[in-house]
Amino acid sequence: MFCKYHVFFCCNQREAGEPCCARLGAQKMRDYAKQRIKTLGLNGEGGVRINSAGCLGRCEKGPVVVVYPEGVWYTWIDEEDIDEIIEQHLQQGNVVERLLVK
Amino acid sequence: MFCKYHVFFCCNQREAGEPCCARLGAQKMRDYAKQRIKTLGLNGEGGVRINSAGCLGRCEKGPVVVVYPEGVWYTWIDEEDIDEIIEQHLQQGNVVERLLVK
Repeated sequence: MFCKYHVFFCCNQREAGEPCCARLGAQKMRDYAKQRIKTLGLNGEGGVRINSAGCLGRCEKGPVVVVYPEGVWYTWIDEEDIDEIIEQHLQQGNVVERLLVK
Repeated sequence: MFCKYHVFFCCNQREAGEPCCARLGAQKMRDYAKQRIKTLGLNGEGGVRINSAGCLGRCEKGPVVVVYPEGVWYTWIDEEDIDEIIEQHLQQGNVVERLLVK
């Protein structure tokens, strides 16, 4: 198994005026998550991989992130939300209900 | 379920001289796959979503594409390979052994 969890942050930039994850700080948050995973020692083969992705197609509900293999979709506002996804989902295997994309 | 299959093409561009999927035509092939899925009517909610992604971390084995939720990793050379992944894996649910990343 290349990675246990593969996490994709939508980092897509759309035209001015259209809702998009990039404008909501997605790239910066992806970088934060990647660093946090590294700090926790969760990265590497068989661990957690954090990726940027093109448009995930849920622009109105963004910023969004999807966790595979489960295919669980989350939205987030700040680093605390990302910390909770890391701690609850990626470390303990629990879905973070309050951040689920409806 | 937002999508039945979520397919990520690594489209990362690395520095000159380093192996990377972008230099092997990944973006163009991602565009081809997206169009092919649309032509076959497999796109849309509950269907197949084709995405570009940042570095998937398997640069030496690229170009690579990963299919979720299974987490099956493929490499490809030409459109025929992509057609086979679409027909066999995404339409019929069969893994294409010959294209698996070892």
